[in-house]
Amino acid sequence: MQTRTLEVSLDARSYPIVIGNGILDDSKLIAAHLTGDRVVVVTNDTIAPLFLERLESSLRKARVNVLAIKLPDGEQYKTWQTLNSIFDAMLAARCDRTTTIIALGGGVIGDVAGFAAATYQRGIAYIQIPTTLLAQVDSSVGGKTAINHPLGKNMIGAFYQPRLVIADIATLATLPERELAAGLAEVIKYGAIMDAEFFVWLEDNMDRLVAREPEALAQAVEVSCRCKAQIVAADEREAGTRAVLNFGHTFGHAIETGLGYGEWLHGEAVAAGMLLAARLSARQGEISNEDVSRLQTLLDRAGLPTKAPAFGAKRYLELMGHDKKVHKGRLRLVLLRAIGEAYLSADFSAPELTRVLQDIPGDD
Amino acid sequence: MQTRTLEVSLDARSYPIVIGNGILDDSKLIAAHLTGDRVVVVTNDTIAPLFLERLESSLRKARVNVLAIKLPDGEQYKTWQTLNSIFDAMLAARCDRTTTIIALGGGVIGDVAGFAAATYQRGIAYIQIPTTLLAQVDSSVGGKTAINHPLGKNMIGAFYQPRLVIADIATLATLPERELAAGLAEVIKYGAIMDAEFFVWLEDNMDRLVAREPEALAQAVEVSCRCKAQIVAADEREAGTRAVLNFGHTFGHAIETGLGYGEWLHGEAVAAGMLLAARLSARQGEISNEDVSRLQTLLDRAGLPTKAPAFGAKRYLELMGHDKKVHKGRLRLVLLRAIGEAYLSADFSAPELTRVLQDIPGDD
Repeated sequence: MQTRTLEVSLDARSYPIVIGNGILDDSKLIAAHLTGDRVVVVTNDTIAPLFLERLESSLRKARVNVLAIKLPDGEQYKTWQTLNSIFDAMLAARCDRTTTIIALGGGVIGDVAGFAAATYQRGIAYIQIPTTLLAQVDSSVGGKTAINHPLGKNMIGAFYQPRLVIADIATLATLPERELAAGLAEVIKYGAIMDAEFFVWLEDNMDRLVAREPEALAQAVEVSCRCKAQIVAADEREAGTRAVLNFGHTFGHAIETGLGYGEWLHGEAVAAGMLLAARLSARQGEISNEDVSRLQTLLDRAGLPTKAPAFGAKRYLELMGHDKKVHKGRLRLVLLRAIGEAYLSADFSAPELTRVLQDIPGDD
Repeated sequence: MQTRTLEVSLDARSYPIVIGNGILDDSKLIAAHLTGDRVVVVTNDTIAPLFLERLESSLRKARVNVLAIKLPDGEQYKTWQTLNSIFDAMLAARCDRTTTIIALGGGVIGDVAGFAAATYQRGIAYIQIPTTLLAQVDSSVGGKTAINHPLGKNMIGAFYQPRLVIADIATLATLPERELAAGLAEVIKYGAIMDAEFFVWLEDNMDRLVAREPEALAQAVEVSCRCKAQIVAADEREAGTRAVLNFGHTFGHAIETGLGYGEWLHGEAVAAGMLLAARLSARQGEISNEDVSRLQTLLDRAGLPTKAPAFGAKRYLELMGHDKKVHKGRLRLVLLRAIGEAYLSADFSAPELTRVLQDIPGDD
């Protein structure tokens, strides 16, 4: 497979995303983006046995000094305590400002290691090697880093751009099925919010994606990153247009909080959430019921849940009120004008929203 | 006294510093720089009784929703725990991204509140109202925010610019004498490193400054901020030229660490440190012994220590090796080519440095 490179354009903070098959230990590529001869690889217990040794030995051959920090695996470790364990290790090893952090892992690793890079000695260089589909198509573009707070997810963080992202499709071969599907939820999102043609491509190629054909995955990662990069370049700090990336997310966060974090994967909650947002759009007469069905079918084929939990409308509205996207006390939702065109709305119909939430069938 | 305004030019992140007498509760000025109608004032136990009520009631009259957070006073509280107490209060009060943080206090408050603003929900607006001379001439320009880590001062932080700085000279009336002197150390530093004319002005006006004449203080704050703004505009993230601002600081940090933090004020350690750096410059033949004497006399008149603790050369070198300014394992020092001209050097004479440190007289 040919390696593809995509540039995320953010003036002085622009960086390349390199997509390929088996490229995570390309030390020449990495060395070209280091600020010194020292690297801290932040990874976790699950990823380390799969890829760490390969990366480490390749860097060492290139005469890079490597310190590996293995975190426990799981969203529950996306905390200040974990972040601090990175700082402890780096300070004990006397890492200075020319050190580069490499995040090797999924979204949690990227978020924590990225926030560590953003704040260690007021900011050092970092490189992302995302090893899940979700991280490759989502966190590799946008510079969002964060940790959780007991009162909310991603409440403490920074916008901070990496120097380089390496999306190695080969790392997806070992990904659990549910996590592959969760990544596909975000891929489908890009089609739904801004690229009708890509949505059709996904309808044509979903079987190849689920079968993990490298060419199809690379294509999906490239188009997804290109979509996100386009939006982020226009709105780096999430002031306006970037909000469409949150399609399905306000509902999704409500689902995650309502069930207790970790019950559903983020992508699964977003999948069910996108469908709720699409139904509200249909009720407001913006998209057809057929469009809703197309989205539902695609999510289904990707192995994603399309039925949201039946919390009842009242509980949903309460949970949605806690979302970061509440603006000046007012709930805003991302809705669809068409497949391939999303917009942010603060004046959606509240009664229709309530009906969408009431109409979620109960469990029996 | 007329209010003076100085612009710190950093493209999209430019902001004004407004210098005046009794202006800290100018709600019209503040309201013009808010991103929403909600403000969190972060202050401490010492400052709150002096100024908080005035600020709060003025903002409330302007229909701004105010949440006040009082931290315990002291450098020892510049920790993650304190930072987290700010996050706890803000999340409990459901502060969203349109909230503005106002830092009302000295350098510790500015650093902690600024870092909270930099990282709360990935960054919200903040305003600084520095109430010490040191904070007015130092932390009000440069966007440095940080907390301490058990293994080092200011090790965790961010570069993050305020929307507005209000330097109210009236707040300096209640400042303890040692703290006034510590602020004057940084003022003298600007003259020494980049403005020979200002250095002469300080020699002419030091008595008025020590007597806290508002006009003289306002002039010193304005020129100091202008000096720092000029340097920071050229080098926002401390990649190069900005390093001259650290004149005296590598020695100063060694003094602070060697004595145990809190024994000497930062400005006091910097004062003694500047003199050591000046002596090394003289030994290398760059400035005259008379220049060293002029600096010593000025520091003396400001009420600052000019005699560094006698740790011995070996201990000093060890302490200096821990400094953040160590670059790729190599110690760099800011030295003087003349009064009014500093430069960063990695190839100073190591034997001369050792002699300067050995020549510090012992206590008897």
